[in-house]
Amino acid sequence: MTYPPALTAERKEHLVTEINDWSIAHGLAVRPGTNPTGALATPAPVTLFPSLFPRVCFDEAISVAEAYNKLYAAVACDEEWLGKIIQELIEIDDFIAGLWKIHEQVKAEGYVQPLNLGLFRSDYLVHQSPSGPEIKQVEFNTIASSFGGLSTLVSSLHSHLSKTTYPKDTLPAGSSLPPNDTIPKLAAGLAAAHAAYGSSPHPTCILFITQSDERNVFDQRHLEYALTTSHNIPVFRLPFSEILARTTLTAERALLYTPPSVSEEPYEVTTIYLRAGYSPHEYTSPLAWPSRHHLERSKCIKCPSILSQLAGSKKIQQVLSTSPHLAALLTHEPEREAVLKTFTEIYPLDGSEEGQKAAAIAIDPARAGGYVLKPQREGGGNNIYRSEIPGFLGRLDKGKWAAFVLMRLIEPPEQQNWILREGKTSEGDVICELGVYGTVLWDQKTGEVMRNEQAGFLLRTKGRESDEGGVAAGFGAVDSPCLVET
Amino acid sequence: MTYPPALTAERKEHLVTEINDWSIAHGLAVRPGTNPTGALATPAPVTLFPSLFPRVCFDEAISVAEAYNKLYAAVACDEEWLGKIIQELIEIDDFIAGLWKIHEQVKAEGYVQPLNLGLFRSDYLVHQSPSGPEIKQVEFNTIASSFGGLSTLVSSLHSHLSKTTYPKDTLPAGSSLPPNDTIPKLAAGLAAAHAAYGSSPHPTCILFITQSDERNVFDQRHLEYALTTSHNIPVFRLPFSEILARTTLTAERALLYTPPSVSEEPYEVTTIYLRAGYSPHEYTSPLAWPSRHHLERSKCIKCPSILSQLAGSKKIQQVLSTSPHLAALLTHEPEREAVLKTFTEIYPLDGSEEGQKAAAIAIDPARAGGYVLKPQREGGGNNIYRSEIPGFLGRLDKGKWAAFVLMRLIEPPEQQNWILREGKTSEGDVICELGVYGTVLWDQKTGEVMRNEQAGFLLRTKGRESDEGGVAAGFGAVDSPCLVET
Repeated sequence: MTYPPALTAERKEHLVTEINDWSIAHGLAVRPGTNPTGALATPAPVTLFPSLFPRVCFDEAISVAEAYNKLYAAVACDEEWLGKIIQELIEIDDFIAGLWKIHEQVKAEGYVQPLNLGLFRSDYLVHQSPSGPEIKQVEFNTIASSFGGLSTLVSSLHSHLSKTTYPKDTLPAGSSLPPNDTIPKLAAGLAAAHAAYGSSPHPTCILFITQSDERNVFDQRHLEYALTTSHNIPVFRLPFSEILARTTLTAERALLYTPPSVSEEPYEVTTIYLRAGYSPHEYTSPLAWPSRHHLERSKCIKCPSILSQLAGSKKIQQVLSTSPHLAALLTHEPEREAVLKTFTEIYPLDGSEEGQKAAAIAIDPARAGGYVLKPQREGGGNNIYRSEIPGFLGRLDKGKWAAFVLMRLIEPPEQQNWILREGKTSEGDVICELGVYGTVLWDQKTGEVMRNEQAGFLLRTKGRESDEGGVAAGFGAVDSPCLVET
Repeated sequence: MTYPPALTAERKEHLVTEINDWSIAHGLAVRPGTNPTGALATPAPVTLFPSLFPRVCFDEAISVAEAYNKLYAAVACDEEWLGKIIQELIEIDDFIAGLWKIHEQVKAEGYVQPLNLGLFRSDYLVHQSPSGPEIKQVEFNTIASSFGGLSTLVSSLHSHLSKTTYPKDTLPAGSSLPPNDTIPKLAAGLAAAHAAYGSSPHPTCILFITQSDERNVFDQRHLEYALTTSHNIPVFRLPFSEILARTTLTAERALLYTPPSVSEEPYEVTTIYLRAGYSPHEYTSPLAWPSRHHLERSKCIKCPSILSQLAGSKKIQQVLSTSPHLAALLTHEPEREAVLKTFTEIYPLDGSEEGQKAAAIAIDPARAGGYVLKPQREGGGNNIYRSEIPGFLGRLDKGKWAAFVLMRLIEPPEQQNWILREGKTSEGDVICELGVYGTVLWDQKTGEVMRNEQAGFLLRTKGRESDEGGVAAGFGAVDSPCLVET
């Protein structure tokens, strides 16, 4: 048995037609790059078949989600510990410095909202160890964790195709396609924050803070429609660039927003969900930092707050993987052990003893081949891989090395699949990255976790030749796992 | 109170964005005219607001649907009466002649399937009479009645907008937006035929016969997905042009189809649903008539059979409106009265006394202004309106006049609305045409109606300047009714 099955040209064409039509009929779509009317859509890039994924690894990643929620809520609450690590980055990273400065300003004035919401996603690769496959964490996303909307749909797509379109007995015996309820679960997380905010003299709403010209808009819209349909909560979208023009703060710093439609009357924003503001290039306008400051000091529940966003830095991931402080952040030992199992080797490139050992590896072409150099900041597209590391560091002022961490590359198992993008298929070796979502609502003052839920998953798949994993960055595809025994 | 409300440019832009995104997220879409990847989609043309529609007229149209189902099933069963009328058309209409010839050939051989399925749609305009608004039938569609998939969605769209986006108190006091379950009801009609077909040694399926390069494909796909999801029935799509290449008949004339994917094993087709084969231009290939003959003689349940298709001729509509034979076709008097109330004046242009009177009107520029000349055949785009009628008839050989009927134009009430198409809005006076779907399964031998159900509705709206009503033909929009008291 080979998987996926060989396809004649005719069968492949038929399958592509089925996928293209199903995708548009169900909103598994993105805006195309060329969009003269502004209204065009195209199916999101997907794999023709669900990729095989070890069931034991999938179960492990799902089961550790709530421990990770707790851990990162605890990191955001431990301002002293977090602040020390961030302090090391501030001098070399203007973006992190800018975020921290806002936090300090709001802290000086006094935060008026103790509640924080996380819609997190922990990303893993499968690593083949002698004792069997294990998951290793690639990164932990605390802001704008995307593809929750589309991932639910691609699970439905592959399930539909397995019942209607794939050749018989395509899926391996004993395998299964797990259902994926990311859309309702992320929406439920936002709805819980909305409810926890409490009463207002105004009508209340949730505000999605968006990037202008977002091509992945339907991914976000599916969460919005779940909120309006299942929870009856008004949701509005506001571009990051229009925050100051469109919102005001009351004396109690309630965030008021008057939508361009609906009403002359303002809504009080209970919760902001940031799908913007995570990348330095969004902060070039003179209004950008004041906008973020305006949001942070408001009374609304932030998803995420600046401390939560900073908790997602690569540097924090690296420190957690080696620091004894983990025990203080995650006191329940079985949870801590489960989290520790998912860590891979990460090293700083700073002046510490460990940092100097790592630097020796990174500048040695013979040894750098098993590593990746990652910037502390979020967002794909800037990683330096393997043999390119020594040259890159050689061209970089040594004082800026600490903006990067050196991470052992996980060598995931390869398999075959097709990726369908804009009507065209490409076939080849692919690797899969599993993301697991979690929603968590906590009290930043007391550290109390009020609601904590695993919230579905995302499988992203890319051609082996590409080292980057982001679908939004223009390569890779949304996939779903076909769980198999190992 | 004006309806719809005045919109600032900003509010209109906001509303357009909301509609464009909701439409794609929910599959309220069509393929655009320019589609380089073959995978692009664009929102279906819709109105920004639901148009006002008299509740009494809506209720009347809904309540007469099952009587119309019975009537047209009876017409299809009354081969003698139907045949006489068709006979008059055969000499002047090659298309009708071709269809009738196939029926006669299959009849000579013997039909092997007594069951027939209708997915009908009766279209109405509101006519302002001195006693109040009444509905007048425009036409009755017995083949490829489209927009059932999209009409369910546009009702959901307008309902969503009324809860989230329209300015407060937009909808008139006491009005309501009726839910529209056309998708599940049309699917249930097809599923009932599938179940009634009975057992087979093969796996069974429903086959949608389609046009190549169909731009309104999602409208059809929504029915298919309802069948696979809610009824667990395999559905395949087969272009009209590939019928002979892809299907075979067994000795018992069971229609076997081997899909290009799924299986090497053939499926037995229980039911064919024709979304093709209704227009003469589809019968130009030498394979077209043999394809239709192949389907008609097969054992599968036809939606529609050739007799049902012919029952939908304009000529039949015209004869029914004046013939005493109506009482024989629809014996239940209250049903007959309800149907009669919806008829408008229709005249033949043949040699009869009535036909000569009508011809006198049609060639008189002073009197033709209140009329439309319609070809007997299906499909929009060929009607001749008002002052153009005398000139048109003057250029036409008099022997071909009988291919047309002369119909009193219904002058429907006008209202204001915006139509959104491919990202652009146009505003102005519009008129609305209400279609009501019905599904009916009957035994052609005994005339017994085994299942009869009203199946939701469609509101199509066009600018007043256009006399044609078809959305697919490139003008007009899908709408939903906002029911008001009169």
